[in-house]
Amino acid sequence: MMTTTTMKRKAASYIFRYSRNFHSDQRFNLNRNNSRLLSGTFLCCKTPIIRDSTPISQYCRDAYHASAINHFRMASGFQFRRFASLSSVVQRNPSFSRLNSDDIDFFRSILGEKNVVQDEDRLLDANTDWLRKYRGSSKLLLQPRSTEEVSQILKYCNSRDLPVVPQGGNTGLVGGSVPVFDEVIINLGLMNDIISFDKVSGILVCEAGGILENLSSFLDNQGFIMPLDLGAKGSCQIGGNVSTNAGGLRLVRYGSLHGSVLGLEVVLADGSMLDMLTTLRKDNTGYDLKHLFIGSEGTLGIITKISILTPSKLPATNVAFLGCKDYSSCQKLLVDAKRKLGEILSAFEFLDNMSMDVVLNHLEGTRNPLPSTMHNFYVLIETTGSNDSYDKEKLEAFLLRSMEDGLISDGVLAQDINQISSFWQIREGISEALMKAGAVYKYDLSLPVEKMYDIVEAMRTRLGNSAIVIGYGHLGDGNLHLNISTPQYDDAVLAQIEPFVYEWTSNHRGSISAEHGLGLMKANKIFYSKSPEIVQIMASIKKLLDPRGILNPYKVLPHSLGS
Amino acid sequence: MMTTTTMKRKAASYIFRYSRNFHSDQRFNLNRNNSRLLSGTFLCCKTPIIRDSTPISQYCRDAYHASAINHFRMASGFQFRRFASLSSVVQRNPSFSRLNSDDIDFFRSILGEKNVVQDEDRLLDANTDWLRKYRGSSKLLLQPRSTEEVSQILKYCNSRDLPVVPQGGNTGLVGGSVPVFDEVIINLGLMNDIISFDKVSGILVCEAGGILENLSSFLDNQGFIMPLDLGAKGSCQIGGNVSTNAGGLRLVRYGSLHGSVLGLEVVLADGSMLDMLTTLRKDNTGYDLKHLFIGSEGTLGIITKISILTPSKLPATNVAFLGCKDYSSCQKLLVDAKRKLGEILSAFEFLDNMSMDVVLNHLEGTRNPLPSTMHNFYVLIETTGSNDSYDKEKLEAFLLRSMEDGLISDGVLAQDINQISSFWQIREGISEALMKAGAVYKYDLSLPVEKMYDIVEAMRTRLGNSAIVIGYGHLGDGNLHLNISTPQYDDAVLAQIEPFVYEWTSNHRGSISAEHGLGLMKANKIFYSKSPEIVQIMASIKKLLDPRGILNPYKVLPHSLGS
Repeated sequence: MMTTTTMKRKAASYIFRYSRNFHSDQRFNLNRNNSRLLSGTFLCCKTPIIRDSTPISQYCRDAYHASAINHFRMASGFQFRRFASLSSVVQRNPSFSRLNSDDIDFFRSILGEKNVVQDEDRLLDANTDWLRKYRGSSKLLLQPRSTEEVSQILKYCNSRDLPVVPQGGNTGLVGGSVPVFDEVIINLGLMNDIISFDKVSGILVCEAGGILENLSSFLDNQGFIMPLDLGAKGSCQIGGNVSTNAGGLRLVRYGSLHGSVLGLEVVLADGSMLDMLTTLRKDNTGYDLKHLFIGSEGTLGIITKISILTPSKLPATNVAFLGCKDYSSCQKLLVDAKRKLGEILSAFEFLDNMSMDVVLNHLEGTRNPLPSTMHNFYVLIETTGSNDSYDKEKLEAFLLRSMEDGLISDGVLAQDINQISSFWQIREGISEALMKAGAVYKYDLSLPVEKMYDIVEAMRTRLGNSAIVIGYGHLGDGNLHLNISTPQYDDAVLAQIEPFVYEWTSNHRGSISAEHGLGLMKANKIFYSKSPEIVQIMASIKKLLDPRGILNPYKVLPHSLGS
Repeated sequence: MMTTTTMKRKAASYIFRYSRNFHSDQRFNLNRNNSRLLSGTFLCCKTPIIRDSTPISQYCRDAYHASAINHFRMASGFQFRRFASLSSVVQRNPSFSRLNSDDIDFFRSILGEKNVVQDEDRLLDANTDWLRKYRGSSKLLLQPRSTEEVSQILKYCNSRDLPVVPQGGNTGLVGGSVPVFDEVIINLGLMNDIISFDKVSGILVCEAGGILENLSSFLDNQGFIMPLDLGAKGSCQIGGNVSTNAGGLRLVRYGSLHGSVLGLEVVLADGSMLDMLTTLRKDNTGYDLKHLFIGSEGTLGIITKISILTPSKLPATNVAFLGCKDYSSCQKLLVDAKRKLGEILSAFEFLDNMSMDVVLNHLEGTRNPLPSTMHNFYVLIETTGSNDSYDKEKLEAFLLRSMEDGLISDGVLAQDINQISSFWQIREGISEALMKAGAVYKYDLSLPVEKMYDIVEAMRTRLGNSAIVIGYGHLGDGNLHLNISTPQYDDAVLAQIEPFVYEWTSNHRGSISAEHGLGLMKANKIFYSKSPEIVQIMASIKKLLDPRGILNPYKVLPHSLGS
């Protein structure tokens, strides 16, 4: 059975999310059928979204071999980048060994023949990230079936100085889940058992390789939901979600994984198995080490099992689409919604009129739910609760009052699942519309809500007529999607944007990576959000838990610190 | 303005909570007026609760000088323990220096005369824990006014090998907030500024010395609440709450501090100031180090500032008191309540008939809300929401259905604030009633909900007629209060209880400290809940962040590891 919310999201998001919503096995097939990966045409078939913040010209400058640079614009209107090795900017750690036939023999002895994968097509997929931006040159993919096998693999690799990359669904957006050079890939996809589910407490215990959507389906039958939901749920694995501290669509209601994850089992670089797999909501017996592994992107240990608190499934969903005259009204509306809707508020999203404009102009089949006039800002409010009529009455009363107070200029309440879907389509269609509009420079920032829109206006002032600057995102979470649209990629525009956007974010105590992580892409940009003292402690903890540095090398920590 | 909930809790809890609900300054006065602390009569005036799990005979055996042992029973019917130095079982770390006059001069030079406290009465208070179980012999209490001063203090102490104890409201229950020997006490009570509050996001930033109740009052005026509420709120400081990962009454609704705390400023042992004071809900830029300091009881650093997400204040509270025929029905009711009441459920407490019996027999003015018959179990359900009539209708419908399903045998819904208060009084009065009934062995355990009551029954079987075993607690959190009542303390009974209760808890993957922490009292019992590998990593992290071990020595980590 599918909840109203899930149905809505599925319907609303298929246009630009569909490509991430297939099962990992299907994905492998798809990739194989559409490759060659060096052909730029691959991307336009199924993966038109470029989500990260660095435009193609910078990739070229930073990472690509000069000979591989090839800007082009597709007939569809999308602009794409090409991938290439990063070896030109990151040096392989010379202390790492090279894989040899004895190593292969050892892995076969513990995993069996078929789980020691050397097939070229499989390796090509596993070496390449979802955005086709990064590609490693690993010659080996291992598929352990148990924590003990993970432990044996790591113990051996550690003793041999063989670097490894833990890989879940490989849906990350910052190059964290693929090898940079010849690291051994460890994929936990075969470890996908549900170990236990306690219907009284709502606590699920499962192996790390479970696909998020499969876990959601299991819970749906039990009357529960996962506390996180992502566009990539059809491929991503819960171990990867936890390792990257994935945010997603339910964060405003159910909080981050640091609150939901109750316990972990982790294998350290030397093969030690750490049992922190508690199923308790309260446990104050010493330092809560599991938090070190949540969001450390596989650089401190490999998560093999997870215990997670799941919320009950609630039947009623309502969505309103509103026009506001200024950003200040959006903020006030958020304050009131949190107070008046309180416990049923499940999403509070905003977009500016530039965002609406780009959607209406570039996304077929969309229409403004408030067509009589363009408003400066639009807000989408979703409620989820246990009684539909109560929730609807509450929402209507809130909206009426907010109109009387002048916070809302106009608004409409969805009457059925189709309307819910079409409202979400506008908010979620902005990314695709931007891609169709031309070149786009994308930034995913966390900022204090009161400052969130200032960077949009500052960027407009800075760029003048040379670009269209739009702002939208999760107002309830303080997560801004700042996007700059130009007819084509231009180094002069980029030079106006960066490092200004990072410096501005840093000066306002924001985060340069709200939920994507640092991976390889932003490892060297960590200082924009973290002080040298903090980064030094991170490096010391890395050294403590992984002294030989074999776990996901070159990621998260700056290369100057030897990561 | 006070919310209904707060009013209710205040009214319901004054009988046994009053003594912890005064301002810290008043408390100092009170202590001074009532001391001498070696007089057992001190306790019976204002602090009749003994909350921890170890009865007096064990304190004597473990910790007290034989010459100081003096069991007695007060005329009031309460049994008390006496405090004494722990020097008989913990050895002072010989690498620590002794305080000298140059040290005092230095501290005066940075803090000024009046914030370098050597007054005997003040030191007696600060040396003694709230339960009067532990007392140190510190000769110095420092009161810094800024993070820079904390930094200067620690830098100096570290260079001199002078150990320190960070002390908040000194309301801890496991001896974590007082010196064991002559450690310098650092109290952050003067650092109590509210730095900022963002009404849009609900994010409060404040100094660590702010008293929880004062912060709650501030937020109340803004239309928000703190995400935690404790009996000790009139004295405890938010820095202490975060350092001990305090749980409290709102955990079932708003989760743990690992989810609510967004940022911290921390001073390390060497005086380094770590700025992790983000005000962002999403920030995936490297390892989230703040979690190391949440719940580490001041052994890794001193928290000086806190950024915390606060929920909106909701106006409607409803409470039902129900009778159930068995524990299985209580569990099923919890599952249904989470689904049917969902977003408005704010408490789900249970007690067994032995608990009800002890309350009715020993607590004046209480009466059974369901007097027609004794039920085997009682459940208290509280809802908090944004619309009283909707919530009440929802709760009534849920209760009716649950009665039809046979999960509830009888029940009553509070009609006004007085009834709400009287229902809570039964649940919250159990501790005091037990104290009046005679000797009590108290255990505060986290266990999987399905196993929670098994330990009560196992203990009954084990103890037979020699004791009354009762079980109650936060069913919604899986937090059991297991209490064993006997006419007087008896080593033979204790030998039947321990280590059985710890072993049973450990075997069922429970926690021997749900929310109180380990402190000094349970530092050596950590292995009942954590594996040697985990404890070894904890010790390594301690060594990394505090290599000379000056921060809150002898606490949290087992003494065998040199804590």
